[in-house]
Amino acid sequence: MGSLEYVPADGPASKVPHIERLAAWSAGLQYDDLPAPVIEMTKDFFLDWYACALGGRNHASVQAITAFSKDMGRVGGRGSEILHEPGTTIGSAFAALINGAASHVIEQDDLHNSSMMHPATVVFPAALAVAQEVGADGKAFITACVAGYDVACRVGEFLGPGHYAKFHTTATAGVFGATAAAAHLLRLNGAQTLSALGTAGTQAAGLWQFMLDATHSKQVHTAKACFDGVFSAHVARAGLLGPRDILQGANGMAASMVPAGSAVRPEAIVAGLGNGDADGFAIMASSFKWHASCRHTHASVDALLQIMREHGLVLDDVAAVVCHTYRAAVEILSRSEAGLTVHQSKFSMGFVLAVAAKYGRASVLDFTEAALDDAELRAFQQRVRMVVDGPIEAAFPAQWQARVDVTTKAGATYTAFVPIAKGDPGRHLTRSELETKALRIAEYAGVADMGAVKDNIERAWHLEDVKDLSGFACI
Amino acid sequence: MGSLEYVPADGPASKVPHIERLAAWSAGLQYDDLPAPVIEMTKDFFLDWYACALGGRNHASVQAITAFSKDMGRVGGRGSEILHEPGTTIGSAFAALINGAASHVIEQDDLHNSSMMHPATVVFPAALAVAQEVGADGKAFITACVAGYDVACRVGEFLGPGHYAKFHTTATAGVFGATAAAAHLLRLNGAQTLSALGTAGTQAAGLWQFMLDATHSKQVHTAKACFDGVFSAHVARAGLLGPRDILQGANGMAASMVPAGSAVRPEAIVAGLGNGDADGFAIMASSFKWHASCRHTHASVDALLQIMREHGLVLDDVAAVVCHTYRAAVEILSRSEAGLTVHQSKFSMGFVLAVAAKYGRASVLDFTEAALDDAELRAFQQRVRMVVDGPIEAAFPAQWQARVDVTTKAGATYTAFVPIAKGDPGRHLTRSELETKALRIAEYAGVADMGAVKDNIERAWHLEDVKDLSGFACI
Repeated sequence: MGSLEYVPADGPASKVPHIERLAAWSAGLQYDDLPAPVIEMTKDFFLDWYACALGGRNHASVQAITAFSKDMGRVGGRGSEILHEPGTTIGSAFAALINGAASHVIEQDDLHNSSMMHPATVVFPAALAVAQEVGADGKAFITACVAGYDVACRVGEFLGPGHYAKFHTTATAGVFGATAAAAHLLRLNGAQTLSALGTAGTQAAGLWQFMLDATHSKQVHTAKACFDGVFSAHVARAGLLGPRDILQGANGMAASMVPAGSAVRPEAIVAGLGNGDADGFAIMASSFKWHASCRHTHASVDALLQIMREHGLVLDDVAAVVCHTYRAAVEILSRSEAGLTVHQSKFSMGFVLAVAAKYGRASVLDFTEAALDDAELRAFQQRVRMVVDGPIEAAFPAQWQARVDVTTKAGATYTAFVPIAKGDPGRHLTRSELETKALRIAEYAGVADMGAVKDNIERAWHLEDVKDLSGFACI
Repeated sequence: MGSLEYVPADGPASKVPHIERLAAWSAGLQYDDLPAPVIEMTKDFFLDWYACALGGRNHASVQAITAFSKDMGRVGGRGSEILHEPGTTIGSAFAALINGAASHVIEQDDLHNSSMMHPATVVFPAALAVAQEVGADGKAFITACVAGYDVACRVGEFLGPGHYAKFHTTATAGVFGATAAAAHLLRLNGAQTLSALGTAGTQAAGLWQFMLDATHSKQVHTAKACFDGVFSAHVARAGLLGPRDILQGANGMAASMVPAGSAVRPEAIVAGLGNGDADGFAIMASSFKWHASCRHTHASVDALLQIMREHGLVLDDVAAVVCHTYRAAVEILSRSEAGLTVHQSKFSMGFVLAVAAKYGRASVLDFTEAALDDAELRAFQQRVRMVVDGPIEAAFPAQWQARVDVTTKAGATYTAFVPIAKGDPGRHLTRSELETKALRIAEYAGVADMGAVKDNIERAWHLEDVKDLSGFACI
């Protein structure tokens, strides 16, 4: 899909909406259609997400949403698991809501570059909850998740950078992925799936305003995308009709939620659908996060660490850092450059590079309340600036690159270019690295039963053989 | 508020966001602050809404949403009423969801002209559900509803016609009203209410695409605005922080959900707040619907009926009708001018005027499946066209006027101008008319226990004296 061109948002829509073809493909996808690498990659992303969902469990927003859910939801009996409360079941929409809120807290979940969205945090919570609701097995779950990834990422690619500048695409495209996964597990046909996706799109929401004051909307966005996905699939099954062309229609998302003058990419919705090529599946193009900061900082962190390692520099050697990046990075990160809270500090290029310079890494254990008061980090933060680079901007969003220039106090200058950040396709994490990351996150989150986490890691590696998806909750 | 000017959406925001003042006002509003006419008007709109909620109970979308709610929600015990299922209680968010879906089906609920939204359908379902949840009395309920009306309508006025052209303002501003009413009943303070409103705004959604294919999103929009309002208030109480300036902030609704070049009206958010003047309350400026069609057709229906009555015309006398109206009416109604379904037929100027010409009214009993196949109506529909009129456009949205020209087959031409449609402020419905309308809707909806409806009419007229809000459900 990478070579397709953006076209004006107000271009003519085809008579058969692209989303209708996508819905039919999603509804019809079968486990036997999946190339082996796609199955293995889905298991990798599932484990990676699972750790992230555990990692966010203590956040105030997750606790607030859990309280609401228990007050409103059908608790007990046939239901889906709250991952951080073993033994408590609740209606699948609420399990999706709670687990969706928890998944995105620690900023370690995956990122699909060309759609500028985080698919795991919206696809897996909805899919797991509905799989538990209907008693689906591992093969059905994997298939639904693959469908959810493709639907979410293709919608995100369609909406493009103009939409992303205004809306949190993880939520607005994510609700399509949550819906597709839920619809697949509920065995909706193509027409029902199209209705569900139309209902999803007319609920699509999520603004960046929370970035300016470090409030909790990011968790609301992912949680509600999951809830709304389960809702959309359920009501479609029960006969509620959604609009047929919510993406390209005259009053649909492109017409209403993409700024005038920005481009959308209709072909991304359907390009290569069902051609059986492993690389055509969106999940193959998603990237793991190794660093615990905003994905827009990763290539810069890699480049800085490379320079410091190669030239034997320590934090105090560095006089100035210039990050050459793409425009979206500057726009997003500028909103939180002060880095006033732990969460916001992960979205400050200066602070993230300071952490990397000091500790040689930027892991979930390094962004703490104590770090916020570290004068050494704060001083380094002031030495970092970002500039938009022409070729790097041109490569975005297919690639999230960076070039970093370091000037030392001794007057030396060094440059490193990172075309592929660690965790990206071509530099994916190994299963050993994924296990290390998962266990580190579980430890960070204060998980008491680490044996259960290790058991679930093993279950993930054999996910296609599990008879049902229950038992992933742990203390 | 009518005289305030629109200003560019990208104008400078004040340092204390207007919404912060609105939140503080909403949280602090007390029953004793309400002028007597405001209390009486709230009772009028409550009854009017109640009838509409009963009227929509048989719609497929309401049934689908009810099925989802029973599957997911806490059914039984302490809970809120599903209005069309006496004896069934459910978590307040779901009661709000279901009753919110039902409220807007028959297109007979109120309309607040200058905000271009229907406040009753989003404020009352949320308020009633939460009032039942917390055991609030009539005075607390009335106060919360008055707050909800002001918050919703002021946000709608702020967002303005540019937003309305893209988004269903009843949903996107409505979620603020549902949130404010719920927050008031949960006794949130000003800061918590501000958080709740911020969380509401970042969930605001609702596109017009459903108008193009007569699907069910309108019910999803009102239902979800109600659900999301209850959600936003609950999670704010539990500590979830929402963005402080979701309306005017650099990445808030005006910046992201109002097209470039369109204006917003910041002063509408706060103008006259708390000055004690009855006419300063938004609920005083809302209008009742007498006709059962889209509100954009009403002044034209009044004008046509006036001409036909004054000149003794019958349907077959009319050769051509020209409706001089405002731009938004042409834009909205053009999407459904074919009038292919019962619902869509209420949004076809031609079909609505045909019904009025044939029956001398356009009541809920006149838009039927049989009417869709009535060749006489279909022929008349073709004789109607709309044009935008300069002065009428200038008066919109403060006033929803129309001038209609009729040319008869005999060659005569007649004109009537309607500056204030029946039901608008200045021509509000009497309590006798409201009772007639309510009973007619209940009959239309197949309510079996008309005695219960009559009892509830009496309760509405004495709403300030009721000890709790339970018992409004009826068979």
